[in-house]
Amino acid sequence: MEFPISNRYFQESSRDAQEAKRQLVLANRILANEGVFDAFGHISIRNPEDPQTFFISRAISPELVTMEDIIALNLRGELAQGNPEFQTFGERAIHCAVYEARPDVMCVCHPHPLELIPFASTDVPLRSIYHQDVTFYDGIPVFTDLTPECGMLINTLELGRALAAQLGSRRGILIRNHGVVVVGESVPRAVYSAITLRDNAKVLLQALAMGSEIHYIGREEAEAGTYQQFCKLGLARSWNYWCVNAKKAYPDIENLEH
Amino acid sequence: MEFPISNRYFQESSRDAQEAKRQLVLANRILANEGVFDAFGHISIRNPEDPQTFFISRAISPELVTMEDIIALNLRGELAQGNPEFQTFGERAIHCAVYEARPDVMCVCHPHPLELIPFASTDVPLRSIYHQDVTFYDGIPVFTDLTPECGMLINTLELGRALAAQLGSRRGILIRNHGVVVVGESVPRAVYSAITLRDNAKVLLQALAMGSEIHYIGREEAEAGTYQQFCKLGLARSWNYWCVNAKKAYPDIENLEH
Amino acid sequence: MEFPISNRYFQESSRDAQEAKRQLVLANRILANEGVFDAFGHISIRNPEDPQTFFISRAISPELVTMEDIIALNLRGELAQGNPEFQTFGERAIHCAVYEARPDVMCVCHPHPLELIPFASTDVPLRSIYHQDVTFYDGIPVFTDLTPECGMLINTLELGRALAAQLGSRRGILIRNHGVVVVGESVPRAVYSAITLRDNAKVLLQALAMGSEIHYIGREEAEAGTYQQFCKLGLARSWNYWCVNAKKAYPDIENLEH
Amino acid sequence: MEFPISNRYFQESSRDAQEAKRQLVLANRILANEGVFDAFGHISIRNPEDPQTFFISRAISPELVTMEDIIALNLRGELAQGNPEFQTFGERAIHCAVYEARPDVMCVCHPHPLELIPFASTDVPLRSIYHQDVTFYDGIPVFTDLTPECGMLINTLELGRALAAQLGSRRGILIRNHGVVVVGESVPRAVYSAITLRDNAKVLLQALAMGSEIHYIGREEAEAGTYQQFCKLGLARSWNYWCVNAKKAYPDIENLEH
Repeated sequence: MEFPISNRYFQESSRDAQEAKRQLVLANRILANEGVFDAFGHISIRNPEDPQTFFISRAISPELVTMEDIIALNLRGELAQGNPEFQTFGERAIHCAVYEARPDVMCVCHPHPLELIPFASTDVPLRSIYHQDVTFYDGIPVFTDLTPECGMLINTLELGRALAAQLGSRRGILIRNHGVVVVGESVPRAVYSAITLRDNAKVLLQALAMGSEIHYIGREEAEAGTYQQFCKLGLARSWNYWCVNAKKAYPDIENLEH
Repeated sequence: MEFPISNRYFQESSRDAQEAKRQLVLANRILANEGVFDAFGHISIRNPEDPQTFFISRAISPELVTMEDIIALNLRGELAQGNPEFQTFGERAIHCAVYEARPDVMCVCHPHPLELIPFASTDVPLRSIYHQDVTFYDGIPVFTDLTPECGMLINTLELGRALAAQLGSRRGILIRNHGVVVVGESVPRAVYSAITLRDNAKVLLQALAMGSEIHYIGREEAEAGTYQQFCKLGLARSWNYWCVNAKKAYPDIENLEH
Repeated sequence: MEFPISNRYFQESSRDAQEAKRQLVLANRILANEGVFDAFGHISIRNPEDPQTFFISRAISPELVTMEDIIALNLRGELAQGNPEFQTFGERAIHCAVYEARPDVMCVCHPHPLELIPFASTDVPLRSIYHQDVTFYDGIPVFTDLTPECGMLINTLELGRALAAQLGSRRGILIRNHGVVVVGESVPRAVYSAITLRDNAKVLLQALAMGSEIHYIGREEAEAGTYQQFCKLGLARSWNYWCVNAKKAYPDIENLEH
Repeated sequence: MEFPISNRYFQESSRDAQEAKRQLVLANRILANEGVFDAFGHISIRNPEDPQTFFISRAISPELVTMEDIIALNLRGELAQGNPEFQTFGERAIHCAVYEARPDVMCVCHPHPLELIPFASTDVPLRSIYHQDVTFYDGIPVFTDLTPECGMLINTLELGRALAAQLGSRRGILIRNHGVVVVGESVPRAVYSAITLRDNAKVLLQALAMGSEIHYIGREEAEAGTYQQFCKLGLARSWNYWCVNAKKAYPDIENLEH
């Protein structure tokens, strides 16, 4: 037995739709409990049984998401499965466009942790200073082409596709004055990247305020670090920790297998 | 059913005095739970059944306010309804003067989140850097005409009216070395604006410490953003989230409909 | 009935030894719960029945103090009342020396909130920027005459008396690289001053990092503000709030009258 | 009876393997509860019954460690005692190398509190500004010789030994862009040093942002201060406080003697 909390081995990638939905509920709660999500933000997972669709919650706060709130959308943002009366996020466009452009991506996450906003509102690059945050070794550009009428939201497929184009093959992209989009090959990887990116921003803000030269993590170091952090043991350790704490904070999900 | 937590549709504007009082109790608890209020601060709602009066709690800490603590005052600050033995806030003058000057305003909120005080104590403008905080597109002036003997409080109708005059048609005004007054067409809008303004200040303080040029949100962008944030779906999502969390933190209000 | 939580009117000054001890337990818990105390720090109250002695807890962390942990010391720091096996604080010298020098003082509090240390370790004055923190209008000097062998503690009567001499008639004095001593005419006043001083430091650190000119609260304004904050209604409101929250955090004192 | 919480006198140094394991579980939970550990980090204690081995948890998050998760390793990092199916930390190399080089050391702790990272990523020295943090009077160097392929981890005996060599006879060493290693003659001393070092970094970051000259604690003062903080009474007070709070946070260990 690898983990005392869970009765099963860590399964990084969801093998079927049911597992995908369960991971998605856990991810919503984890990111809320770790302070990455607040009232807003959303995360989705590509449907392993139908990769042209993805699971996402209806338009409620991440902290409140249950299995019953999960719907499936297609890559045009239309309802593929679930209650037709449910409201959907205007920003589902982000998810549609990224899944369309990136067959390797299984999870798209869009939070707005306050620590990231200074980097989304200045020209100061969000470089890696903290060894947990190594997965963005390809850099994190800032998407600035918001239109005056969009209301500061990526709420059309056109905007979503422009964002996905600038994202390219990277793991993340900031949105000007708004937040970030983080992607991953699995839910645990995207969750890991989102949490550690926020932590890195917190550290970097403090380091920048010191006014001294900063030694950043090199690209080669970061690639080797990503291998270490994304190995089964490393990822399982943090995923388990985040799940345990989310279940403590939200007893309604304490029986959800993780 | 739009929200799993509440059994009724989101009703942004109170339709009668009873609904107004209930919204006011929720707003007190929400702002306490979200860290916008501490031992001090107050919020009021115009009485939908008698617009020349408004509901406010007696002079206790916001976190402790119950339905039984609500009184009604007229625009001269005199008791219109409620227990005559209750103490009232010296700063009720703020509420009186704003309701008098602004028929469009249904809610007045006066918190002192610490993050705002640097902007109330320097000439650095509190501009919008974070996309959730878009509702103050008309700017936030600083009221500086405190008199030496006022004890740093807006505790006379004269001071309240001077503040209301400088507020003009805006959504908020800082008070020098003191705090802020935030107004709205409804309780959820004022609560939304108060919370996001605090968040924006937190981000802006960090961005300013970086010493780099800041890209602020433009006025046109902010107006379009306000439309998005104040649409029924957006506002309902955050209001529901804040209510759920306030009810978790304060079980004595868990049966109060929201 | 003035407060729904408490069944009796707010009694600012303890009238007998029993009330004094009860206030002291509450003050320990309040300052722990509000983050002003951590594992260390101590607070005392002059014995209203024998002003040449004062009550203080034995040498345990403030959060853990109960009625059974209170002892009385005389102004030479010797046990006047209580269990002779109890350990006493080495820094009781601070309390002895201040009560000796200041007949007006009924409460001495010595916390080390981290926000104050930058002002205790630089020449930047800790001036009032936030309207709740108005009670230190006479300024807050820094006591720097620590001896190399004192271990950074005020643990002799000689050091205590040097500190009390520099304190003079003021309400507070910082200790270099260490913390602060805050005094008051009553426990609620000293607690109020200690909490708001910490908040003021938090704000001032942020304002200083902005690099812009700061408008401080004037002396006349601060005196008038102190009158407002220390009036019965104002002080009762915050004391009640802090008590309610401390009792929530520490259920073992929930039946202690406040 | 010295402490109301515990039924026995404070025993700083573990006298047998069972006591050592119990201290280790407590230390894991304390450092998690005090925010020094998060999902990652580890702490070990030298086996008092076989000093060529040490106890450490298997590779899970510190917050989750129970008596059942403790294993013993020898100084080559091989399992000496415990479940052979348990995963071990790649970074056990740190513990092996330090115990090998430092017979005086009974406890090795490796956390990554975010506040330390700016000092591990710049040339700004982490000097003592706060009187609780006096135990590092010999200074805290930064280990920078990470190899490109190590993944930012000290995961070979060679790297561990290089780190131990630079540590020398000191109490701590930072690791570039990564975290810190703190050692002590006992678990309570290492825990004390780790917590106060984090607090000191928090204060120093704020002081540095003020841009004014900082008065640091002198070496002689710090040595005298360490004597005070590490005396039985001082250390017992904080250890007891941290244990009580860890047990509140993690009820599963509430019956573990401390």
